[in-house]
Amino acid sequence: MTDIQLDADGRLRHLITTQGLPRALISQILDTAESFVPEVGRPARKVPLLRGKTVFNLFFENSTRTRTTFELAAKRLSADVINMDVAHSSRSKGEDDLDTLFTLQAMGADIFAIRHPDNGAAARFAEHAAPHVAIINAGDGSHAHPTQALLDVFTIRRHRPDFANLRVAIVGDVAHSRVAHSTIYALRTLGTTDIRVIGPELFLPADPQALGVSATTDTHAGLDSADIVMGLRIQRERIEGDILAEVADYHARFGLTAANLSHANDRALIMHPGPINRGVEITADIAYGEQSVILEQVRNGIAVRMAVMALIAGKRDSRSQRANSQT
Amino acid sequence: MTDIQLDADGRLRHLITTQGLPRALISQILDTAESFVPEVGRPARKVPLLRGKTVFNLFFENSTRTRTTFELAAKRLSADVINMDVAHSSRSKGEDDLDTLFTLQAMGADIFAIRHPDNGAAARFAEHAAPHVAIINAGDGSHAHPTQALLDVFTIRRHRPDFANLRVAIVGDVAHSRVAHSTIYALRTLGTTDIRVIGPELFLPADPQALGVSATTDTHAGLDSADIVMGLRIQRERIEGDILAEVADYHARFGLTAANLSHANDRALIMHPGPINRGVEITADIAYGEQSVILEQVRNGIAVRMAVMALIAGKRDSRSQRANSQT
Amino acid sequence: MTDIQLDADGRLRHLITTQGLPRALISQILDTAESFVPEVGRPARKVPLLRGKTVFNLFFENSTRTRTTFELAAKRLSADVINMDVAHSSRSKGEDDLDTLFTLQAMGADIFAIRHPDNGAAARFAEHAAPHVAIINAGDGSHAHPTQALLDVFTIRRHRPDFANLRVAIVGDVAHSRVAHSTIYALRTLGTTDIRVIGPELFLPADPQALGVSATTDTHAGLDSADIVMGLRIQRERIEGDILAEVADYHARFGLTAANLSHANDRALIMHPGPINRGVEITADIAYGEQSVILEQVRNGIAVRMAVMALIAGKRDSRSQRANSQT
Repeated sequence: MTDIQLDADGRLRHLITTQGLPRALISQILDTAESFVPEVGRPARKVPLLRGKTVFNLFFENSTRTRTTFELAAKRLSADVINMDVAHSSRSKGEDDLDTLFTLQAMGADIFAIRHPDNGAAARFAEHAAPHVAIINAGDGSHAHPTQALLDVFTIRRHRPDFANLRVAIVGDVAHSRVAHSTIYALRTLGTTDIRVIGPELFLPADPQALGVSATTDTHAGLDSADIVMGLRIQRERIEGDILAEVADYHARFGLTAANLSHANDRALIMHPGPINRGVEITADIAYGEQSVILEQVRNGIAVRMAVMALIAGKRDSRSQRANSQT
Repeated sequence: MTDIQLDADGRLRHLITTQGLPRALISQILDTAESFVPEVGRPARKVPLLRGKTVFNLFFENSTRTRTTFELAAKRLSADVINMDVAHSSRSKGEDDLDTLFTLQAMGADIFAIRHPDNGAAARFAEHAAPHVAIINAGDGSHAHPTQALLDVFTIRRHRPDFANLRVAIVGDVAHSRVAHSTIYALRTLGTTDIRVIGPELFLPADPQALGVSATTDTHAGLDSADIVMGLRIQRERIEGDILAEVADYHARFGLTAANLSHANDRALIMHPGPINRGVEITADIAYGEQSVILEQVRNGIAVRMAVMALIAGKRDSRSQRANSQT
Repeated sequence: MTDIQLDADGRLRHLITTQGLPRALISQILDTAESFVPEVGRPARKVPLLRGKTVFNLFFENSTRTRTTFELAAKRLSADVINMDVAHSSRSKGEDDLDTLFTLQAMGADIFAIRHPDNGAAARFAEHAAPHVAIINAGDGSHAHPTQALLDVFTIRRHRPDFANLRVAIVGDVAHSRVAHSTIYALRTLGTTDIRVIGPELFLPADPQALGVSATTDTHAGLDSADIVMGLRIQRERIEGDILAEVADYHARFGLTAANLSHANDRALIMHPGPINRGVEITADIAYGEQSVILEQVRNGIAVRMAVMALIAGKRDSRSQRANSQT
C-alpha cells in the first residue's frame, strides 16, 4: 500500500492511507501545515500555490462537511474547484468509476479528493491515475481517512509534542471506524505505544494486537491517566437497534461525560472528528469545555489538507519539469 | 432585536431585521449600494473588497434564486463562496444548528448568509457567532427578510426619493410574508406613513395598527392614488385549499391587473419580490410593462447585498485591527 | 434558425445549432480552440478573456458531466460561474422559463449555457435574451448539441483534416440523438459527403436523405472502409424493453467490437460522446485502444467550449463599445 503513495524519490505522490506512511513524510506534512494555520480570530490567508490547478471533489458518498473542508483548502491555495457528487448505486461497477476517472483527467483535473463507500477505492483510483494526477483519499469505506488522521496528530502535536510518552484512549466503534484506524497508524508511526480502544464488545477490533492497541470494555480502566481522549461519532442506528439493545446505556457507560473523564489525566485533551451527537458519545459541556480541542481540529483540518495538496502539487510540478527537460 | 445588529460604535455588525434598524444605517447601505449598480447593458464590475474572505451560504431551506443573489454579490466582491444546503428535518434541534455554526466558523467563515425555516433563527446564530463573524439573515420563517426590504426601498428611492409623501400599497398574504414585514419596517423608518395592506381577510395582519399600516379587503380603495404597488408571491396551495375556496377569484379581486391598477396613481411603480405567478397575483403584461420595476429590483438586489457585505466586512477589519493593537 | 445565431456583421452571437452555421464560423471556432488545448500531461492554462463576466450553467435537465465541461471552460477563461439546476416539472410552462431568463439577466448574467428537455428551448431563450446576453445550447431535447458536434469535428480535424474525402459511420440510436444530428450537420458543412448511419430499424432516422446520410441495418456494410467510427451512448431501457426485445443481441450486432470494426479502415478513429456503456455499444478494449480518440474528445471539449465563449464574449464587448461610443 505504501508504494503507490510515494514516487521514485520517496516523496508524496498520492495520499491513500497513513498505514506505512513514513515518519519523515508525516512530519513534513505537519510542518507544512503549520504555515497555513491562521491566527485565532483572523481571516484565513490565501496563497497562490495551486493557481491554475484544478481540484475535483469527487464524492461517491454524500458528505457536505468533509467536501467543504477540501473545497476551502483548495480555494485558499487559489485552485479552481469542481464539486461532483456522483450517485453510486449498488449496480455501479468499478469499471464505471475508472471511466469517470479517465474522463475527468481528460478534462484537466490535477488533484482528486475522493470519498467512496468501498474499501480500497482510493488506492484503485491511484493505480489507474495518469502520471500528472494525484489522488487524495477523503474516506473509503471503513478502510482509511488519512487527512482526518493527520489533522488529529497535528492537533495533538501542537499541545503534546512528546508522542512517545503519550497515553491515548479512543472510545467508540473502533471496529468500523476509518478515522480510528488511520489515526492509530499515524500515532504509532510517530512513536506512541500506549493506545487503548474502549467500547462495547461489538465495537472492538477483532485483532487489537495486530493494530498495536489494547482493547477494553471497561471505560474507567481504559481512560486511566489518558492524556488524549478521542470520542468517535456513533451511528444511533447501531446502538438503538435490536442487536445492541444491551447498550441502550451507551452514553452512561461510554460517553465522554464528566464522570467518565474523571478517570483520565485532568489535563487530558478531548477530541472528536465531528459532527458530535450531543448526549450520545459526548456531552455539550465537554465538547465545548476548556480541555476540548474539537474546534481546533476543524480549523487544523483545513491547514493539513492545504499542506497535503501543496506538497503533492509542488512535487508534481518539479517532476513535470524534469520530464520536460528530457524531451 | 436592534442591539445584536450593531456594534458598540453603532455600526452594522449583523443584518437580522429591518425592525429598529436606524435610519442612518439604512441610508448608508443604500448609498453604498449605489456604487455597485452596473449601468444597464454593461457587465457587472468586480471589486476586491472581500478578497481573501469566505462567505458561506448556509441554507436550511431550499431557495436557488435567493442563494444565487448572495453568491453573485459575494463573488463580485472577490470573496470565496461556499454553498451549503443543509437538510433541516423536523427532528433537528437548535443545538445541531449551533454545532454547525461553530464548525463552519472554525473552518474560517467570515460571513454567513443564512436561510432558515424558523422565526428567529438568524438572531440566534448572531448571538452565538464569534466576534469576527457576521450573520446576514437571508430569510427566517415568516419573521424577516431584510435584504429584500432594503432592495425594495433602494429601488423606490431611485424613482421616488420623497418617502414621507409616498402612498404604498402591498397586496397579498401580508400576514405570513417576511418580505412584507421587513419592507414595512424599512419604509416607516424612512418616513413613509401611508402604507396600506390589501388582501382577503385571512391574509391581513392581526394587528395592522401595531405594524403601522392600514388594512383593507377592498382592493380599489386600498390602491386609490397609490404611488407604489407591491404584489406578493402567492402560494397556490393557500388559495386553492378548502379554507380559502371563497378566494378562487383571487386574481380578479386581488391580482395586479390593468383593471385593479386603474385605481392607483397612473405613474405608480409596480413591484414584486419574485418569482411571479403569472395569472395569479399579477399579469405578465403588468410584470413586464412600463411601470414595472420588478427586474430592477432583481438587479438592485445584488448591489444591496454587496453593500451589506462590504459594510460589515470593512467594519469587522477595523475592529480586528483595534483588538490587535491592544494585545 | 441560423439568423438568430449571428449578428448583423455575421459574427457568432448565440450558439444554438450547427445546422446552417457557416463554414467560416465553424473554422473560426476550431482555430480558436487550438490555442486552448493544453499539451498532454501539462496543466491547463488559465486566460483572462472572460474576467469579470458571469456564466450561468442553467440546467433544466440533470447532467453533471456536461455541466462540468462548461464550468471548467468558463473558469479557465476566468469567468465567475453560477451553477443552477432548475427542476423542470411537466407542469412548468415556457413562460416560467422566460421569467427565469429575465430574472437571471437582471442579476448580471453575460452567458448562459442551457440544457433543456424540450426541442427548441435554446432558440426560444435566444429570441428573448437581452442584447448583451448570449445563449449557448448545451443540449435541447433530441434537437441539437452543438458544442458536442464542434468538439467532434475538432477532434477529427486534428487527425484527418481532409473532410471532403472522409468516410464517417455513426452507430446507434441516431433517430433520437441530438449529438448525431448536430455532428452530421457540422460534417456536411465542412464538406463530408459519405456519412452512414447504422442501427436497428427503430434507431434509423425517418428521412436519411433529408439529413444527407445513408442508413443501413447492416453493420458490416455500413462500416466498410470507414475512416471514422462514432458510437452513440445507448439507453439500456430502450434496448431491454419489450419493444426492442429483438435487439437483445445489440452488442454483437451493433457494438463497436473488434469483430465489427474489422470491416472499417484499419486506421479508423474510434469516437464516442461518453459516458460509455462497456459491453453495450462498445467494449473497453476498443474504448481505450490505440485507435480511440474518446478521451481526446473530452479534453478537446473544454477547448472548444472556451473558444465559443471567448468568441461570443469578445464579440459582445466590441459591440458594447461601439454602442457606447455612439452615446
